[in-house]
Amino acid sequence: MSHGVPRRPSADDVISAQERLSGCVRRTPIMESEQLNARIGGRALIKPECLQITGSFKLRGAFNRMLLLSADERSRGIIAWSAGNHAQALAYAGAKLGIRATVVMPSDAPRTKVEGTKHYGAEVVFYDRKTEDREAIGRRLAAQIGAIIVPPYEDADVIAGQGTAGLELLDDAVALGAPLDRMIVCVGGGGLIAGCALAAQARGYATKFFAAEPYGYDDTLRSLRAGARVRNDVTIPCIADALMTSTPGELTFSLNRQLLAGGFTVLDDDIAAAMHFAFAELHLVVEPGGAASLAAVMRQPETFAGLTTGIVLTGGNVDAGRFSQILSAGTAVGS
Amino acid sequence: MSHGVPRRPSADDVISAQERLSGCVRRTPIMESEQLNARIGGRALIKPECLQITGSFKLRGAFNRMLLLSADERSRGIIAWSAGNHAQALAYAGAKLGIRATVVMPSDAPRTKVEGTKHYGAEVVFYDRKTEDREAIGRRLAAQIGAIIVPPYEDADVIAGQGTAGLELLDDAVALGAPLDRMIVCVGGGGLIAGCALAAQARGYATKFFAAEPYGYDDTLRSLRAGARVRNDVTIPCIADALMTSTPGELTFSLNRQLLAGGFTVLDDDIAAAMHFAFAELHLVVEPGGAASLAAVMRQPETFAGLTTGIVLTGGNVDAGRFSQILSAGTAVGS
Repeated sequence: MSHGVPRRPSADDVISAQERLSGCVRRTPIMESEQLNARIGGRALIKPECLQITGSFKLRGAFNRMLLLSADERSRGIIAWSAGNHAQALAYAGAKLGIRATVVMPSDAPRTKVEGTKHYGAEVVFYDRKTEDREAIGRRLAAQIGAIIVPPYEDADVIAGQGTAGLELLDDAVALGAPLDRMIVCVGGGGLIAGCALAAQARGYATKFFAAEPYGYDDTLRSLRAGARVRNDVTIPCIADALMTSTPGELTFSLNRQLLAGGFTVLDDDIAAAMHFAFAELHLVVEPGGAASLAAVMRQPETFAGLTTGIVLTGGNVDAGRFSQILSAGTAVGS
Repeated sequence: MSHGVPRRPSADDVISAQERLSGCVRRTPIMESEQLNARIGGRALIKPECLQITGSFKLRGAFNRMLLLSADERSRGIIAWSAGNHAQALAYAGAKLGIRATVVMPSDAPRTKVEGTKHYGAEVVFYDRKTEDREAIGRRLAAQIGAIIVPPYEDADVIAGQGTAGLELLDDAVALGAPLDRMIVCVGGGGLIAGCALAAQARGYATKFFAAEPYGYDDTLRSLRAGARVRNDVTIPCIADALMTSTPGELTFSLNRQLLAGGFTVLDDDIAAAMHFAFAELHLVVEPGGAASLAAVMRQPETFAGLTTGIVLTGGNVDAGRFSQILSAGTAVGS
């Protein structure tokens, strides 16, 4: 596997991924809340990927990539680095396909994500998020054991797989007679939003794509403005563990600088309020990172007035104690 | 409105209700957990009615009944008594149809249910669950203001409406190639399970129906065994507020004694464990009463081995503080 920039995914790759993934992932439903619609003076169509198998959209990209491995590659096993959702996705797809999986995870990852990953049978190697480079560890391990790297976002097939979440949402919106004017997608490495934007391109939809990022981890928005990739200070605390990446991917940024219309930043309090809203109004368990796009819409509802906006709730893997803490914070600040 | 036993619903009434409700209620998805399947050594198909509009299946029965009101009846408004989910359903359907709604609710109903009901525009009248008879209050008020009573379960059209949840689950199971051997449905007044069993009858399915009830509120199971309606001591504490009814309905029991195969009782701890499982594995917010059927399956998994079992998660309206408390209890006792 080369160290250079990997192949760019095409819009058609998302369509092919959807066919390939049929029967492997759930087609999650579209949800709508009259209360949210009233609040924004527009229409929001919500895609709850927290209801996806393994609890996040990450299964789409991981499974798509792994289905494309050759017999030889499958026998060598796969390796990845992940804050947790990609890890669980790989572990699950590995178990389904009979492929040995090893995952490099931060030692402070949510317990539910670590346990989920082990539960599906993957081997977990921990690293210190503040002092170690997970990618370097992953690449070294890969070389040692001869395993295939399945990156969380710097890969055409992973991006195309994630894009199927967007494809479903975009198509279901059209079927409802409410084509999306905008889609708001939380951004860690940027693979999901790139895939979703490619999905729109594949169908010829005019939907505009906006990133949702936590304050301090708004590297994609700042990079879009700067015209080049900038870095975050990854020691800044943030409740959205899944979005605490250091910088946009080289591949994802090369796509997103062409595909995105802009971005929104949200505070921890906005995320807590969005998680509380999802709990009370939608009866969904959404993890902090998974609620960032909803938080962006709830923070600046006037920005979405008169529009139909797609919101992806990307994951639901959060420890019970943490969820309870955040709910009570979300109640305090919420609505 | 007569005080006698109301009309019995037929199996075909459930089919008609489904047609009538098209576009008014959500067709909730079917979910499946490999972890749960492994635990029971069988297959469980889960129907998350917590994702229904207003957060519970109750919308189906209330809406169906209200769609059948005459223009004169609509103009008089409707009245009901409810622990909360039927109240929210009536309030919502009332708002949609332009019908004034009044609801008699226990003063200790969950705040989220009271607020939800008021939010949709209904008038709420409180009563003391331990000392007052909600039905008497409701009937007196109805006579005073000339409003139409929409009972929570003693009504053919309400029962037929609730049955559409079962019809969807039964049909979706067949479409998956996994027709249901059993369906486990939580029982308060018994309207939902009666409607679901009628749905199976309408389609000619051989599914067996079992009630899930909290200890102390297992009036339906005890009544089935006794061959006559028995009463609960409604002062016994129970976390499942939605299931704390005093006795089976006369109509629902006359149906259920013919339609049910038996029942299961669950402890508060079983319910807490089921709520925790739904949180961590399904990423769903399920209220205590809504988790009783899952709790029954998790409590006696061996009983469901080798079978395909349908489980209805009936509602998700629970206060955040209460949910957090129960989650931590569920973590302690869970799996």
